[in-house]
Amino acid sequence: MSGARRIRDYGIVIGSLPTGPGNAITDVKGVRVGHSTRSEGDIQTGVTAVLPCPDSPFDHKLLAGVHVINGFGKTTGLMQIEELGTLETPILLTNTLSVGMAQDALVRHMVASHPGIGGRHGSVNPVVCECNDGYLNDIRAMVLTEEDVLSAIKAAGHEVAEGAVGAGRGMNCFQLKGGIGTASRQMTLGETTYTLGVLVLTNFGRLEHLVVQGDPIGKRIPPQTNPLEKGSVIVLIATDLPLSALELRRLARRSSIGLSRVGGLMGNGSGELAIAFSTANRYPMQPDGPLITLTTLHQHHVDLGFQAVAECVEEAVLNSMVVAEPVTGFKGRTRRSLSCYLEDH
Amino acid sequence: MSGARRIRDYGIVIGSLPTGPGNAITDVKGVRVGHSTRSEGDIQTGVTAVLPCPDSPFDHKLLAGVHVINGFGKTTGLMQIEELGTLETPILLTNTLSVGMAQDALVRHMVASHPGIGGRHGSVNPVVCECNDGYLNDIRAMVLTEEDVLSAIKAAGHEVAEGAVGAGRGMNCFQLKGGIGTASRQMTLGETTYTLGVLVLTNFGRLEHLVVQGDPIGKRIPPQTNPLEKGSVIVLIATDLPLSALELRRLARRSSIGLSRVGGLMGNGSGELAIAFSTANRYPMQPDGPLITLTTLHQHHVDLGFQAVAECVEEAVLNSMVVAEPVTGFKGRTRRSLSCYLEDH
Amino acid sequence: MSGARRIRDYGIVIGSLPTGPGNAITDVKGVRVGHSTRSEGDIQTGVTAVLPCPDSPFDHKLLAGVHVINGFGKTTGLMQIEELGTLETPILLTNTLSVGMAQDALVRHMVASHPGIGGRHGSVNPVVCECNDGYLNDIRAMVLTEEDVLSAIKAAGHEVAEGAVGAGRGMNCFQLKGGIGTASRQMTLGETTYTLGVLVLTNFGRLEHLVVQGDPIGKRIPPQTNPLEKGSVIVLIATDLPLSALELRRLARRSSIGLSRVGGLMGNGSGELAIAFSTANRYPMQPDGPLITLTTLHQHHVDLGFQAVAECVEEAVLNSMVVAEPVTGFKGRTRRSLSCYLEDH
Amino acid sequence: MSGARRIRDYGIVIGSLPTGPGNAITDVKGVRVGHSTRSEGDIQTGVTAVLPCPDSPFDHKLLAGVHVINGFGKTTGLMQIEELGTLETPILLTNTLSVGMAQDALVRHMVASHPGIGGRHGSVNPVVCECNDGYLNDIRAMVLTEEDVLSAIKAAGHEVAEGAVGAGRGMNCFQLKGGIGTASRQMTLGETTYTLGVLVLTNFGRLEHLVVQGDPIGKRIPPQTNPLEKGSVIVLIATDLPLSALELRRLARRSSIGLSRVGGLMGNGSGELAIAFSTANRYPMQPDGPLITLTTLHQHHVDLGFQAVAECVEEAVLNSMVVAEPVTGFKGRTRRSLSCYLEDH
Repeated sequence: MSGARRIRDYGIVIGSLPTGPGNAITDVKGVRVGHSTRSEGDIQTGVTAVLPCPDSPFDHKLLAGVHVINGFGKTTGLMQIEELGTLETPILLTNTLSVGMAQDALVRHMVASHPGIGGRHGSVNPVVCECNDGYLNDIRAMVLTEEDVLSAIKAAGHEVAEGAVGAGRGMNCFQLKGGIGTASRQMTLGETTYTLGVLVLTNFGRLEHLVVQGDPIGKRIPPQTNPLEKGSVIVLIATDLPLSALELRRLARRSSIGLSRVGGLMGNGSGELAIAFSTANRYPMQPDGPLITLTTLHQHHVDLGFQAVAECVEEAVLNSMVVAEPVTGFKGRTRRSLSCYLEDH
Repeated sequence: MSGARRIRDYGIVIGSLPTGPGNAITDVKGVRVGHSTRSEGDIQTGVTAVLPCPDSPFDHKLLAGVHVINGFGKTTGLMQIEELGTLETPILLTNTLSVGMAQDALVRHMVASHPGIGGRHGSVNPVVCECNDGYLNDIRAMVLTEEDVLSAIKAAGHEVAEGAVGAGRGMNCFQLKGGIGTASRQMTLGETTYTLGVLVLTNFGRLEHLVVQGDPIGKRIPPQTNPLEKGSVIVLIATDLPLSALELRRLARRSSIGLSRVGGLMGNGSGELAIAFSTANRYPMQPDGPLITLTTLHQHHVDLGFQAVAECVEEAVLNSMVVAEPVTGFKGRTRRSLSCYLEDH
Repeated sequence: MSGARRIRDYGIVIGSLPTGPGNAITDVKGVRVGHSTRSEGDIQTGVTAVLPCPDSPFDHKLLAGVHVINGFGKTTGLMQIEELGTLETPILLTNTLSVGMAQDALVRHMVASHPGIGGRHGSVNPVVCECNDGYLNDIRAMVLTEEDVLSAIKAAGHEVAEGAVGAGRGMNCFQLKGGIGTASRQMTLGETTYTLGVLVLTNFGRLEHLVVQGDPIGKRIPPQTNPLEKGSVIVLIATDLPLSALELRRLARRSSIGLSRVGGLMGNGSGELAIAFSTANRYPMQPDGPLITLTTLHQHHVDLGFQAVAECVEEAVLNSMVVAEPVTGFKGRTRRSLSCYLEDH
Repeated sequence: MSGARRIRDYGIVIGSLPTGPGNAITDVKGVRVGHSTRSEGDIQTGVTAVLPCPDSPFDHKLLAGVHVINGFGKTTGLMQIEELGTLETPILLTNTLSVGMAQDALVRHMVASHPGIGGRHGSVNPVVCECNDGYLNDIRAMVLTEEDVLSAIKAAGHEVAEGAVGAGRGMNCFQLKGGIGTASRQMTLGETTYTLGVLVLTNFGRLEHLVVQGDPIGKRIPPQTNPLEKGSVIVLIATDLPLSALELRRLARRSSIGLSRVGGLMGNGSGELAIAFSTANRYPMQPDGPLITLTTLHQHHVDLGFQAVAECVEEAVLNSMVVAEPVTGFKGRTRRSLSCYLEDH
């Protein structure tokens, strides 16, 4: 998170829950994030990897849930999460036309490290999410390779670079520069403090709709080019709250609150979805016996988690925009940074 | 459909509706099927391509609907069909670990033939379905390439080879040899005769549950190896019935009837899903004005379509099994053909 | 289950799992069933109540899941089960136009016995399922009252009367007499024997499609009147298998297998759905602390439950038909019993 | 819309699209709204009826779509809308424990006016939505009767009373007085101007989260009693945009945007859902032939409709609050009006 100013550094505080120490998805213990960025003239794209746990998510799966806000998108791997309620690979983010390549690379990575995949342990469900960076990136060139994927996975660590990095390199948000953003919140239930973190890949919205903490700033910013772009936004939610797959799906649904509050309209062409996973319970691939025991949060107490999602998503979107540097890419097109238009509060 | 005997050649007639001339999905005008098969020792796999229309499905999309019977699978492209109700690419079938490669190849194929993709016409939603052929095929070798995909697309024609071909090369069904099967039905409504065709990729079921036209033959066939395999089955439904996306989803739901009648149990590890599309209405990528006019079948008349789906799926599964030749593949494992155990009726 | 012959008494054995002692949903400990029947000339209708547990399902809810096979129906209460994964009232079955009355009566029953409902314990989610008995019953007369509901609840016990009783009094199945049917199966996992039971309310199907254990007997039975009737079928699944809400939804999905095997086609006008609940874990309305602990079956072992559902549904439908006596009702219309056409095997 | 000041009368303008002439759901031609209100000491409740068309919605159904935001609720009739994509009755709103009664009354009303219901025209799908008014209303008394329902239907007209009327009489919103609110927007596509209108029943939210046009006013309003109440909100969307059932479902999904912007968090106990219907196409119960022709808006143009939904929902919620008079009801509890805390802008 380098030296770039984040949205809080402008005096803009979203919501009321306290943040985790890094105000990042990696505040959830065990979660790591890595980027691989390609920035060379017409090529402005990349890969971001979110590793949900320090050990193998295939051997001990994580409970997970999904919500599709607007299904105009090409993300893979959601069907099995919806059916089984489990996540078993890292989650990759990349550009729309590179999903197949990234899926292939992720499968090869999993096959190489798990001799049982394809054999006695069955198949593996790779999760690859995408947005269309075709405005700033020559997406038709399809330049990303297995190496970019492996390098993002290898780079995964505790620090989360935001803005125009990794899969976010070529993304737009409200016709300004978008990309990667993150945020976290802490919640105390009984005597335990839990953490919830969000990472977003932002590529949605029209400038005139942009709202920062209730202020319709988008109406005051000078019009930018290409108002008709196709968008998308991906929301990843990690938490150590012990939630069932059912509750994680409900958590994922609350991501639309944060998107709505910054001015999102779930446009027809904007693929929008959320994946939520919990690190608290692990679902063994090979159980010792027929039964497993899970400790989960009672539904009466889940509202705090819902609020944390809403706050984190709103803040993470804004972080993705203010941290992003301006980028000039494909055909000389430029996207400016929200940071140019924000004053300190 | 060569010289191999199909299930009707044994005197076994499924259902009561008349078949189309070829009793195949390609009886629906404009639909074509092509295979690319790899059969070399441990490698027994391939790709099958279903082309839904003679012209570009991207420029003039087809209405489509999806039903996930059991979501333990890695098929891509369903989310967007569910959201928009349209299909815009050929549908590929292949083995589980090759989905990423096939998706990448299909995207490259679409990008090459459509200059607007990635640019002013937005992204493209590739549909790739899969079953796990890891019993007969060294699936971990991941040998399939873009060439296999392109060659299946190029080979697409009116004749549909069944059994151990294309994506079906290494598949199992009820612990016998499975693979590709097809069937069709004709329906008369008013003065018009409509056609509905199905193509299946079969890789599911336990021998003891196999039922042929009500006869639990599976209990009489000698036990085969590997009773605990992971399955899957893909059902593709084409029709010239003018159906809305909503009705096509309902059509897809009826595929489980045919699967149930041959002895399917929708096992935990068996990814099962259906995609239905209609060739009757085309949805233009670039409409002339804001409105489009669609003629669709009234719900009162949709039962004939439901019956056609149930009959076609049951017959197509049986065709996939009796046409299939025995295959010996990975580690010398063998799957026999149902044809060895069927007598003429 | 009186002296009426059930389908096994004809030598017809569905599936391979052993039945529970009563071959009824009440083999699952704590589950009770009661009927209230109205049979007076044009009026042939009633109410059936399924009580899921001996104590209050509101104070300690049961995990539950739902699957809608064909949503042409008026059943209430499903939305909340899908959201929260819990069941908190008895389940009522009745005729289509009496759902509102039955819901009102069930709410009054719950309000009377739970002082917190409407107050500090919030609302209550009544579950009322229905089929349309308008062929044999003068359904427009809407004669059922709160008393019929309370009397069905009060009558609930271990014995399950089948056939033309309770909500099943006026129902049709495959143009013969339908109604209430039940069946159960036992499964051994590790050293524990679990039970799964099903109760169906049958009112679907066309005679020509009827299949008994693979035999298309419907084609040989003389045609009956009114081939175009509007159907429906309700499937209730109870089990002591410790399943999560997610797995219970998957269980409910397998009910379509049994329906398909007796000849169901999920017709456009046939409302078909399943509700599955488990008695193994109870979800407290007022937890002691924020966390609760659930023991659940690992997904690797759920196939036995799927098979039990498929077998029970098929057998329960046949029981509903062979046990049913012929009924003459509205406008002198008659439905015969399948028992007239079955010979001993 | 009497003499009460609406949110625009305070200088607060939500969004950018122009309103219809009445800024009400009844700006959509043919839509009518009626209330029946009970206000007598502990009893503060009622019924609201929305009639979607001047003629019978049963004989010529309206295309419709549904979105469940949070399924903790007892609304009936959604399953069939989701399956068939049609609405065939008026929509009723009332308190949670009166849904059964209201459903019964609506069925009786439909049966009385449609001789085919229960007979050759099959069943009828009543739609009854609810929120829990148990804070201000002695909901356990269950005082509403068929007469209240019929009187709301009979009262239906072009003028829409807002605030503490009809089903909204006892509702709370952000711990202030909620109830009925409405708003509308106009959109021009090609040379045609279309209208979209929304009616809400508001009973959700926590005061500290209330936001009026970006201003977190809820933090400045003095704390009110009972912060832990159970909420809910119902959103009804009418439009003359010619939309398919699929697109209407997408429209319904956008209702969460408006709810999020006023401070909604989709709390665990808050049942939230939207129903959208179009008056542009009518789906005949008895078609002349097997085919029907529908003119629908192309997906490229649906964003205007999405924006209209977002704006109308936000404005309608605020209208429900500012128009509402303070109400004292059950146990002497009081809810104040937002109008007491708003200054002119």
